[in-house]
Amino acid sequence: MKSVPESLPEWESLTVPQQVAQMFVVRASGYLFDHQIQYPEWEPPRAKLQHWIQDLGVGGVILLGGSAGELALRSQQLQSFAKIPLLIAADIEEGVGQRFSGAIWFPPPMAIGAIFRKDVARALHYAQEMGAITASEALAIGINWVLSPVVDVNNNPLNPVINVRAFGETPEEVSQLASAFIQGAQRFPVLTTAKHFPGHGDTAVDSHLDLPVLPHSPARLGEIELPPFASAIASGVDAVMSAHLLIPAWDTERPATLSYPILTSLLRQELGFEGLIVTDALVMGAIANRYGASEAPVLAVEAGADILLMPVDPAGAIQAVCDAVTEGRISEERIRASVERIWKAKRKVQGSRADLGDAPISNPQSPIPNPLQLASPHALNTSANISRDSLLVHGQVPLPRNTGNLRNLIVVDDVLNCKFLSKLAPAVALPKSLGYQLQLVDPHTPTAPLSDAIAPISTTKTLLQLFIRGNPFRGSAGLTPVAEDLFKRLLKNAELQALVIYGSPYILEQFLPHLPPEIPCVFSYGQMSEAQAIALEVLFPPQ
Amino acid sequence: MKSVPESLPEWESLTVPQQVAQMFVVRASGYLFDHQIQYPEWEPPRAKLQHWIQDLGVGGVILLGGSAGELALRSQQLQSFAKIPLLIAADIEEGVGQRFSGAIWFPPPMAIGAIFRKDVARALHYAQEMGAITASEALAIGINWVLSPVVDVNNNPLNPVINVRAFGETPEEVSQLASAFIQGAQRFPVLTTAKHFPGHGDTAVDSHLDLPVLPHSPARLGEIELPPFASAIASGVDAVMSAHLLIPAWDTERPATLSYPILTSLLRQELGFEGLIVTDALVMGAIANRYGASEAPVLAVEAGADILLMPVDPAGAIQAVCDAVTEGRISEERIRASVERIWKAKRKVQGSRADLGDAPISNPQSPIPNPLQLASPHALNTSANISRDSLLVHGQVPLPRNTGNLRNLIVVDDVLNCKFLSKLAPAVALPKSLGYQLQLVDPHTPTAPLSDAIAPISTTKTLLQLFIRGNPFRGSAGLTPVAEDLFKRLLKNAELQALVIYGSPYILEQFLPHLPPEIPCVFSYGQMSEAQAIALEVLFPPQ
Repeated sequence: MKSVPESLPEWESLTVPQQVAQMFVVRASGYLFDHQIQYPEWEPPRAKLQHWIQDLGVGGVILLGGSAGELALRSQQLQSFAKIPLLIAADIEEGVGQRFSGAIWFPPPMAIGAIFRKDVARALHYAQEMGAITASEALAIGINWVLSPVVDVNNNPLNPVINVRAFGETPEEVSQLASAFIQGAQRFPVLTTAKHFPGHGDTAVDSHLDLPVLPHSPARLGEIELPPFASAIASGVDAVMSAHLLIPAWDTERPATLSYPILTSLLRQELGFEGLIVTDALVMGAIANRYGASEAPVLAVEAGADILLMPVDPAGAIQAVCDAVTEGRISEERIRASVERIWKAKRKVQGSRADLGDAPISNPQSPIPNPLQLASPHALNTSANISRDSLLVHGQVPLPRNTGNLRNLIVVDDVLNCKFLSKLAPAVALPKSLGYQLQLVDPHTPTAPLSDAIAPISTTKTLLQLFIRGNPFRGSAGLTPVAEDLFKRLLKNAELQALVIYGSPYILEQFLPHLPPEIPCVFSYGQMSEAQAIALEVLFPPQ
Repeated sequence: MKSVPESLPEWESLTVPQQVAQMFVVRASGYLFDHQIQYPEWEPPRAKLQHWIQDLGVGGVILLGGSAGELALRSQQLQSFAKIPLLIAADIEEGVGQRFSGAIWFPPPMAIGAIFRKDVARALHYAQEMGAITASEALAIGINWVLSPVVDVNNNPLNPVINVRAFGETPEEVSQLASAFIQGAQRFPVLTTAKHFPGHGDTAVDSHLDLPVLPHSPARLGEIELPPFASAIASGVDAVMSAHLLIPAWDTERPATLSYPILTSLLRQELGFEGLIVTDALVMGAIANRYGASEAPVLAVEAGADILLMPVDPAGAIQAVCDAVTEGRISEERIRASVERIWKAKRKVQGSRADLGDAPISNPQSPIPNPLQLASPHALNTSANISRDSLLVHGQVPLPRNTGNLRNLIVVDDVLNCKFLSKLAPAVALPKSLGYQLQLVDPHTPTAPLSDAIAPISTTKTLLQLFIRGNPFRGSAGLTPVAEDLFKRLLKNAELQALVIYGSPYILEQFLPHLPPEIPCVFSYGQMSEAQAIALEVLFPPQ
């Protein structure tokens, strides 16, 4: 493939509209073809995307969807559209494999927090390795901007949107682990991002759906929410992402994303952050519904943002910011200051893109990022070790090998959206190989019959496996009524042989008090195949 | 990427063991990384695969799994291991997208057979386009050997393994449509394959599991089973794949794959086929369990096979054939004859591989195959038109727009193996947008409660959608007891508003007689998103 732009022009040679366009990062599907687009409202077809990149000259793209191999082709395709090399971003908080299959999928950051409370040095090592592996794998497929670490302090167990995405519940553990992640990532020419400023951990409202309010005093915010950001900045984080939160202590009117007191007075001036200030997605409900597609980006620039992420209408948004410059509402100096920061970031990542043209694919030592070099044994081991060291085990293990009526009852958040389950996944395949009969339940399972579905067959032994974690867009911290109902019935019928929970430790906290102490319970932060194998090995060790 | 072998050496320069190795096509995962291997018993890790290709010098690889984008990278990786360019095969019978997401996924061939019975010319046009699109998309991702068309005559509705994979139920329609497919594919330098010789349509046994017997007379075989093969040969098909079937009329002892009377006397001599004779997978139960890993390939070569597909143990199998040559059991001439045919095939596809190095990706007219040029509008339209023209509609449509208790009850063969369903698939998303509540049932749904699960709520209207088709390895032609039970209960409760069946027309035949004529019923051969949208448009036309 050719025509990937090789070098960065001097930014001074750009017109004001060209400079403004460089401040925008647009959303696109990571899949290669238009017919694969998953969210047509948000993801443009190829022709429109090419127009945004080539003609409007947007500065970057954020990608979602597709495998790691597809991403490598996709990122190169997008770079080939660009006259100025693009920033290519992705929301990878649990390793590149969280979003793009084939790469390493780590357990969520809170797993490392759990290890931190037992062994600080080991946890810091893991966080640093996770940063390094994430950065190198991102580069290998053409992503040069990693939208992590999350540095929010998750001190609200009901938080539906941060939850296990945070490294922990105290500013100390989050600060240390997030900084270690950043230091690890810095071994590679990739951008990192501390988010969501000034702290999204203490809310039970999902900002994808509405605007949460943080009613705390400046003193409390300075004590809990801000330290991890200060620490990330001290560690040289490249970008800070704003939160769509209202924090009356600092700004009674506007959410952080659009607040001058928060982005400029606090983040830029008081905390002295000189890198990129990036908004969270402007299409999110908390912003889009309240401020409008054209006004929101103008307000964000006025507030101090350098990068405007996922505007509802990129062409209109660029025009609106240009108009604000023409009208004198925003100064040309203000634009130039942002573009200078963007250029500094682009220079850092320059020449780091995945190369499908010349990489000697049989040489694993090649310094050129190559999509065929993901998932090294070291990376796989690191992820497995985090899973193993953060595992929680209660009750008597291993299980005796049983015969008779054995049931493997799996409950998932949403069976139509659980890439971690397949007929070959250990949670399905291992119990099957031991004679367990699979039953699968999610909120779409016909509910009336559930009471009878698990009618007391005194001889049945049930292995109950729950795949539940807090998920954005669902407005709940994860526990489904069906899971709670099934658990209670199994206990009542004395059918429960063992409980395995994959996902949120807050679910474990809710179940554990009700569980007779002799019944084994295993908790795993990770939900992926590898984590399933590690959790089930405790109950069913190889013979 | 470099070091893809550019040219074919003279085959005469190869030693006998090198020649023998070229007769083997090994199975490998289409995914890029070892940790993604789905079937570790059959799919070697990268190092072993590289050894088979580089050191043993096997002639080709058959790939399963991965997206089209990943396949493009994978095929180039494998070619880079080879000293002699590889044949890269895939079992793509319903378009490349059937196996590798991103490319076009056509409805199964029998959909075109249904059109044939209404409009011969249109069906022939579709079959030809399907051949051409499949061939060009295969080449675009580095596949140079298409293991289709299926030319079996599916005259047994209980056939669990062929079923809708066949173009039809009569020799005439199969002959004409398969030949049209081959002619379409011949616009591109790719190999086609008529299968499964001498005809796998009239059996109710799955040869993946056991050895079926075809008890027919030579006269009947010559009348029904053979004509489509003769027609494919006349159309210049490049390869013929043998069936693992016992046909006592021609060979009382050995299945077709290992039978000299069938492969040599009948296919090579009587039918005059001069191309590649390839075995079906030697790991399949009908062969592997009966003849052993080393003896089966020797017997296949003796019978007349040129290519030995998916041996249980490639190194051992190559050695066994070499030993048979040393011992004089197989002559060197016999090996040379096969290698000459393999070279002819390799010359045909030479220079046709997908090129990630120099393809000008912004030029859709480029003659160089390019993985970014799949799924053209023409190809998407062709597939949609086949879906539309093969749709069967009974009863009164469209549905009146209802309110109240609306239920969308989806029954699938296996919810853990249905890539065509997601929360964004029309079968899920469209009824949801109209107020239907989703319920999802498969054989893993707790069964005791089903009777009550659909308890008579007189006001509920249920849209019942069945995704059922004959599937290899399951030993059944598709109908699950749960689907039958649900259907009967809904009828009894007068709750059924409409029935949509995606998959096997034989399921439709079983349900239709029991359906009151006023209740709408739509049947779609295709199960993919595009087919769902077309089927549901009949019930819920856009307003």
